[in-house]
Amino acid sequence: MTSSTLESLLADVAGGRIAVPEALAQLPSAVSGSALTAEATVDLDRARRCGFPEVVFAQGKTAAAVVEIFERQHASGQRCFATRVSDEQAAAVRVRFPEVLENPVARTVRVGAPPDIQGTVVVVTAGTSDRPVAEEALETLHWMGCETDLVVDVGVAGPHRLPAQLKRLERADAIVVAAGMEGALPSVVGGWVACPVIAVPTSVGYGASFGGLAALLGMLNSCASNVTVVNIDAGFKAGYVAGMIARGRAT
Amino acid sequence: MTSSTLESLLADVAGGRIAVPEALAQLPSAVSGSALTAEATVDLDRARRCGFPEVVFAQGKTAAAVVEIFERQHASGQRCFATRVSDEQAAAVRVRFPEVLENPVARTVRVGAPPDIQGTVVVVTAGTSDRPVAEEALETLHWMGCETDLVVDVGVAGPHRLPAQLKRLERADAIVVAAGMEGALPSVVGGWVACPVIAVPTSVGYGASFGGLAALLGMLNSCASNVTVVNIDAGFKAGYVAGMIARGRAT
Amino acid sequence: MTSSTLESLLADVAGGRIAVPEALAQLPSAVSGSALTAEATVDLDRARRCGFPEVVFAQGKTAAAVVEIFERQHASGQRCFATRVSDEQAAAVRVRFPEVLENPVARTVRVGAPPDIQGTVVVVTAGTSDRPVAEEALETLHWMGCETDLVVDVGVAGPHRLPAQLKRLERADAIVVAAGMEGALPSVVGGWVACPVIAVPTSVGYGASFGGLAALLGMLNSCASNVTVVNIDAGFKAGYVAGMIARGRAT
Amino acid sequence: MTSSTLESLLADVAGGRIAVPEALAQLPSAVSGSALTAEATVDLDRARRCGFPEVVFAQGKTAAAVVEIFERQHASGQRCFATRVSDEQAAAVRVRFPEVLENPVARTVRVGAPPDIQGTVVVVTAGTSDRPVAEEALETLHWMGCETDLVVDVGVAGPHRLPAQLKRLERADAIVVAAGMEGALPSVVGGWVACPVIAVPTSVGYGASFGGLAALLGMLNSCASNVTVVNIDAGFKAGYVAGMIARGRAT
Amino acid sequence: MTSSTLESLLADVAGGRIAVPEALAQLPSAVSGSALTAEATVDLDRARRCGFPEVVFAQGKTAAAVVEIFERQHASGQRCFATRVSDEQAAAVRVRFPEVLENPVARTVRVGAPPDIQGTVVVVTAGTSDRPVAEEALETLHWMGCETDLVVDVGVAGPHRLPAQLKRLERADAIVVAAGMEGALPSVVGGWVACPVIAVPTSVGYGASFGGLAALLGMLNSCASNVTVVNIDAGFKAGYVAGMIARGRAT
Amino acid sequence: MTSSTLESLLADVAGGRIAVPEALAQLPSAVSGSALTAEATVDLDRARRCGFPEVVFAQGKTAAAVVEIFERQHASGQRCFATRVSDEQAAAVRVRFPEVLENPVARTVRVGAPPDIQGTVVVVTAGTSDRPVAEEALETLHWMGCETDLVVDVGVAGPHRLPAQLKRLERADAIVVAAGMEGALPSVVGGWVACPVIAVPTSVGYGASFGGLAALLGMLNSCASNVTVVNIDAGFKAGYVAGMIARGRAT
Amino acid sequence: MTSSTLESLLADVAGGRIAVPEALAQLPSAVSGSALTAEATVDLDRARRCGFPEVVFAQGKTAAAVVEIFERQHASGQRCFATRVSDEQAAAVRVRFPEVLENPVARTVRVGAPPDIQGTVVVVTAGTSDRPVAEEALETLHWMGCETDLVVDVGVAGPHRLPAQLKRLERADAIVVAAGMEGALPSVVGGWVACPVIAVPTSVGYGASFGGLAALLGMLNSCASNVTVVNIDAGFKAGYVAGMIARGRAT
Amino acid sequence: MTSSTLESLLADVAGGRIAVPEALAQLPSAVSGSALTAEATVDLDRARRCGFPEVVFAQGKTAAAVVEIFERQHASGQRCFATRVSDEQAAAVRVRFPEVLENPVARTVRVGAPPDIQGTVVVVTAGTSDRPVAEEALETLHWMGCETDLVVDVGVAGPHRLPAQLKRLERADAIVVAAGMEGALPSVVGGWVACPVIAVPTSVGYGASFGGLAALLGMLNSCASNVTVVNIDAGFKAGYVAGMIARGRAT
Repeated sequence: MTSSTLESLLADVAGGRIAVPEALAQLPSAVSGSALTAEATVDLDRARRCGFPEVVFAQGKTAAAVVEIFERQHASGQRCFATRVSDEQAAAVRVRFPEVLENPVARTVRVGAPPDIQGTVVVVTAGTSDRPVAEEALETLHWMGCETDLVVDVGVAGPHRLPAQLKRLERADAIVVAAGMEGALPSVVGGWVACPVIAVPTSVGYGASFGGLAALLGMLNSCASNVTVVNIDAGFKAGYVAGMIARGRAT
Repeated sequence: MTSSTLESLLADVAGGRIAVPEALAQLPSAVSGSALTAEATVDLDRARRCGFPEVVFAQGKTAAAVVEIFERQHASGQRCFATRVSDEQAAAVRVRFPEVLENPVARTVRVGAPPDIQGTVVVVTAGTSDRPVAEEALETLHWMGCETDLVVDVGVAGPHRLPAQLKRLERADAIVVAAGMEGALPSVVGGWVACPVIAVPTSVGYGASFGGLAALLGMLNSCASNVTVVNIDAGFKAGYVAGMIARGRAT
Repeated sequence: MTSSTLESLLADVAGGRIAVPEALAQLPSAVSGSALTAEATVDLDRARRCGFPEVVFAQGKTAAAVVEIFERQHASGQRCFATRVSDEQAAAVRVRFPEVLENPVARTVRVGAPPDIQGTVVVVTAGTSDRPVAEEALETLHWMGCETDLVVDVGVAGPHRLPAQLKRLERADAIVVAAGMEGALPSVVGGWVACPVIAVPTSVGYGASFGGLAALLGMLNSCASNVTVVNIDAGFKAGYVAGMIARGRAT
Repeated sequence: MTSSTLESLLADVAGGRIAVPEALAQLPSAVSGSALTAEATVDLDRARRCGFPEVVFAQGKTAAAVVEIFERQHASGQRCFATRVSDEQAAAVRVRFPEVLENPVARTVRVGAPPDIQGTVVVVTAGTSDRPVAEEALETLHWMGCETDLVVDVGVAGPHRLPAQLKRLERADAIVVAAGMEGALPSVVGGWVACPVIAVPTSVGYGASFGGLAALLGMLNSCASNVTVVNIDAGFKAGYVAGMIARGRAT
Repeated sequence: MTSSTLESLLADVAGGRIAVPEALAQLPSAVSGSALTAEATVDLDRARRCGFPEVVFAQGKTAAAVVEIFERQHASGQRCFATRVSDEQAAAVRVRFPEVLENPVARTVRVGAPPDIQGTVVVVTAGTSDRPVAEEALETLHWMGCETDLVVDVGVAGPHRLPAQLKRLERADAIVVAAGMEGALPSVVGGWVACPVIAVPTSVGYGASFGGLAALLGMLNSCASNVTVVNIDAGFKAGYVAGMIARGRAT
Repeated sequence: MTSSTLESLLADVAGGRIAVPEALAQLPSAVSGSALTAEATVDLDRARRCGFPEVVFAQGKTAAAVVEIFERQHASGQRCFATRVSDEQAAAVRVRFPEVLENPVARTVRVGAPPDIQGTVVVVTAGTSDRPVAEEALETLHWMGCETDLVVDVGVAGPHRLPAQLKRLERADAIVVAAGMEGALPSVVGGWVACPVIAVPTSVGYGASFGGLAALLGMLNSCASNVTVVNIDAGFKAGYVAGMIARGRAT
Repeated sequence: MTSSTLESLLADVAGGRIAVPEALAQLPSAVSGSALTAEATVDLDRARRCGFPEVVFAQGKTAAAVVEIFERQHASGQRCFATRVSDEQAAAVRVRFPEVLENPVARTVRVGAPPDIQGTVVVVTAGTSDRPVAEEALETLHWMGCETDLVVDVGVAGPHRLPAQLKRLERADAIVVAAGMEGALPSVVGGWVACPVIAVPTSVGYGASFGGLAALLGMLNSCASNVTVVNIDAGFKAGYVAGMIARGRAT
Repeated sequence: MTSSTLESLLADVAGGRIAVPEALAQLPSAVSGSALTAEATVDLDRARRCGFPEVVFAQGKTAAAVVEIFERQHASGQRCFATRVSDEQAAAVRVRFPEVLENPVARTVRVGAPPDIQGTVVVVTAGTSDRPVAEEALETLHWMGCETDLVVDVGVAGPHRLPAQLKRLERADAIVVAAGMEGALPSVVGGWVACPVIAVPTSVGYGASFGGLAALLGMLNSCASNVTVVNIDAGFKAGYVAGMIARGRAT
């Protein structure tokens, strides 16, 4: 449709090709510009508006719906990324897009080439069990086109391990720190570096960790000034914000 | 002391001016480099390590302690900034530093010229009552040397107000959104822009807002990918992280 | 029994057909008027008192009990509706009432023709995963005899999607909004329309959504004046109240 | 400004009086249509959009701001209403609008004549201490132009008191029930009537009432199908929704 | 009014003195029988129904209202009791009823002679600070006509203190145990005696006592079979239930 | 052992049959008098001390341990009762005690004849799903030797159902009320009767019932004076306390 | 009384000076041995049983009661210590015991000479505001007779500050760490030392610190093996346990 | 590497074998001294720093990772210990280390001879279901080289059972108390003994125990001065701290 943008709609009005009442009726869809399809509302305009295409949160969707969204994005020339992907969903994507990049630890799938590399993000974990959350962040960063570095198992109970990695941390434009239990690691990292630290609490722990609540509260109360927080186990969001910072403003 | 840095200490060892056992004993304080004084441990090294000098969280400190820290920072050529300042503390600083910049709404004091302006941060509030938190963020940004813009009273209950301000939002390198009650505004802002959004829940509300908990949980669960969260009423931290993003990495 | 209502009981007293002591004894059951059966207490009087027959909350009941209640309602000329129905319960109803209308997504079964259509309710979802709750609301509205419209996937992270659907929202006598995560959608919908909005938080989300608590608190603190809230995942109750509003007072 | 509505803006485009680029720039403010003033953003368009003018939540605002908003609304021919009004704010309004209607128990002020009476709402309280919340609901209903009836002190511990008032309840188009402690009254009221019940938990109680949380949870879990819930102590919102239901859709 | 009971109403119907329609209209108030007055709904029927007159929860009531309820009860020959009484309320009662019995620690007032003594209740406290709650229980028991014994300061940290008092505990028909902090005392008492133990958590403590929540949860999870629980600081209710048990069923 | 009670021990000391140092050593076990066995510490003295034998909480115990405790109690002439019994545990008891009384709904087993019937307890449920908790209470009461009556499905949403059963409630010496969701039924029952009401919240419900927390808080805040509360789903404890009240003090 | 211990009571029985029934009656008080006085139950036996005299928790006690307990302990030759002391209580103690040692920051008073010094405890604070809690711990340690060292302001945001103090930490037999906000410091300290760390969360912080809850949860989930936790702001208990560890078992 | 310690590094600098810039680069890893391997960061230095080797928290690790860590520790001459071990992990360790000591109730494996026995710890449980937590504590103590004693099933509901075991408790240098439900046992134990009590709440219970939260809060609020607390079900940590206390300071 030629009047799919506001500008062309207004031009049509100015040119007398569309009457005012009709223009009033078309205005909302012109503003939204979404490609409404049978089952899914794909936000094809998001890359322009927010800098990156829409990412599919696959949990609770059918495998067919995930594939359909990918097809629509692919047809529009956008690269595709889905998180919280089940085995069944991954298999359905693989059938349709054999070139898919899968990460079963992160539970993600990616289709399409990433943009040129720009910016560096270091992902840090407190313990081995925080790895899946870190992997989700890393996959997100690969999809966004960031250089990444993974520093594992430097939790505060071994206080000498982190200082040994400072050189790697200092290279970062932004740092993601995934930690469960008491969630103290972001505060310590934050005190050593001069870039934003995105803290992601993980549900690793037991008893009074209350599924990550203890780590979440700890990170929110961090005495380090450069620490912000995302949802429990939200590796994707931590990676996304870190990547956005590292790449600078999208244009 | 001449060996106040690691390098000079090592040089002294290499030059035979300091024996190995003595060097071992001096190593910790050389590493820390803190200027230990009678009452306070001022982290004078932080600007080098983290890009900005230490900021004083004045709550629970005596007025004398605040002044003493400022004096020590000032003597080192660092600019000074304190938050959560009481009337008594502000008065004490004013006596010693008549040039102080005070903001009674933000409850902050600043001494010393800010650096050259770099980067732009837009601070957004949902309602009038979120203003003090927004002011604390703004003062932080002024101290860091960022250009700022304040957009007030664009909460979601008046859904047409935010789109009218999009032009101003699009200029930002980072956005701070302060909101109480249901805390929905950051999600909506996040869906319109291509830069990180730092959400700061405020304790504005009543009943089931539980002192800001409702807004905090809402922001942590935001469906917008570019939203991270700081503590309730933490205007300083929101401003700090936004300023760090806007200025890029300190050197 | 001829004295099954208060009026006939009193008439019998006035006519001397029942003595005062006997009338005193019969009074409680005359007041209650419930049809007490072997296993279940079916509230056959509810349609007169509350405008609609009793609805069966099937969770925790045996399949036989669900069928028995339906039979009793059916024998009284009432239409039947059950929610939270298991596969086993649905199968048992299907054997006895082959004409049953089943919705496996909503987990509901209906028997009997709905009343004439009256009033319009629009059901809105923030994301695909909120669909089962929305379907439960829709089935309830069909059973009540309301016209319905379903608007899906217009969550706030794609802020342009909702305005594109305003025409459909404006046709509503009442709106049901189902949303998980931060639960911000009802506030935004509420700011656009002139009818009551029934917000139903869903347990969609992870981490600090705490099974729907974040959405629930968000909705309770909504800054939109026309938003009320029901229990987490309570599609039935949201639909029921919306239908009651849309149809006006039952007679 | 002549192009203050979308229609006139589009007409100007069609008539060649405004060029397309300029129209694109004016579009946002045309959509929003807010009367932006020095200190406050008054939503003068809300009456058209939502059926009733904006209501001022006075808590946290200066007395001057409340008066300014009232003046602007008054100048636009809208009637004014503010809740959570302090003594100082009420006095400031009284100076400017001597005809103000004040209710110190409800902590509200009203200026301007209500519309014609339409619909009936009954407000019910469980105990004497719930009165302020009930009064806030009543004032809201008077401002909206509804007939009201107040039934007090019929909590469930005196189970015979409610049935004695059934005739009054049956006259309602909608019912507001304010209750603290265990919050059981809405469930009982809901079982007797054929109209929606808006339950408002109050912070009345002590110990494990946790500031109204116990009542809130009780009401959300109500087994009565026609009960919805608003925030703790939210008399205004309960009254507003009940009034909206009672009056039917605004036009 | 001669038809103030159901029986006389029915007799009037049988005798033709009241027509059936009129009887239908009078039925609700005949069932309820409350003495409705200007400001307060006094439940004068409660002594017959529940064994004891209504008790006034004074918190949130005006002094005048407390006095009015007492006057009405007094006029009906009932004895009066109010809890959570402020100094102002107590003074107002004292003016009207100089014979009042006041307990400023318990914050209660009583008017009228108690019934004959029947049954024995022992009230036990863990620490000195639990005394006000214990006093409220004791006053309730005096008003009900129970023999009482007060055993103080036998918390579990001095584990030898309780066994020394076993003889006194064994005399009880019911025991009230008031404890704050960890609330362990009811479990220990429960293991020594053969009567019901009413546990009342107090808000005594700090930090993680969370206003009595820790004690409340501890008592609810008591491994002693004979322990039931009332609300935090609910000395009245603990005393009331204990007194009801000790006196046996009222007639 | 002949000196198994304090009296005989002291008599041995007085008679010179046991020296003082030896008596000091024997004192603790004389006081405790527990029959310590290989795996379990059975409290055979409890019947004397608390009026009833020990009841086995089977959850988390091996089937062998349950049988062993029963054997030891049986050998001492005590009757046996276990709650939260798994199928495997029930089967093991059945092999050893073929005369066992099993209730699979209540998940209890009993061995041994109950004492003579004394006292009456009515058990009331709000809905069908509360039945298992009610059955556990009933089994406890049968084991204690109380007459019981079960009134089901009289929740407050059908407010006319309870008054129809008042005659049955009035026969009770104590009443157990099991209710989930909002837990309002105990308050209503409490307002109609003159005996203690033991409220037992059940985990029936969904969403904001939070596993019974809503019902628990509701019952703790009950405005009825005669309501006490036990743990969520604690049918045993509710029955035990009610039975203890109904039977009067054990001797 | 000559039979104040079990041994002398038994000797009297053996010697025929006390009959068996009388001995049975005296047994409980012989076991307990408390000096029961008019107002207070002073546990004079505690020093023998637990190694240290009873400590007075002054909050909620009258000034007279505190003085009376001190007098009784003093008369028994025990040294006296009270925490959470108000100005009024401190003044009353000062009148009676002019030699009292007062610490207004810790809010403690001490009377009597401490025992010989034994063991070393280091008390560490994260920030200046944690000082009062640290002082309460220090006063407790002085009263117990431990050598102490106070290390302040070494929170994790300045990660170089703690290593600079390691020499002091390594001297400790036990370490007390007081920290608010995220409570991360005990984990870091625990990773550097070979002695038990007693973590005491403080209520320092704001927003999501929820009065110390965040720090408490963080410390409970500490990944350092040697960290145990006490109640929020419980400086006394932290000092007491650390002192007990440092001195070794009392004899 | 020869310069693996600080001392040798500095010696190399002094001897001119390493230049200052190179020394600066090597300093961090010299400080940390960790043996960095392919998959795991084993803290081989911990025994020197903290007195005991690192313990493996196996939950969430692969079986291969557990074996690899054990191999590395074994190669360094350290003894090995892992907790929260799955069947698969235990089997993998058994294949590699046939001499492994397994405890399936505790879910632990140990390899290597314990040190000489030093100190005595008594582990106490309230009920049979607390056994797994107690066993984890016992295994930890065996690995540390402490004498242990296990006292089971002495919960407060049988209050005479604990005093009968006092002789055993008095032998302890430290006591671990594991209890679920109300968690009252540590307070009672604490009141009888003169050594530290490490309280470990267990998740035993139901309903309002909320997975051990009730016991946790109870223990934190313990009125006994010598009670500290660890995480819910944290048998390892309780045992570790108790062992550390019992053995005295490691050298």
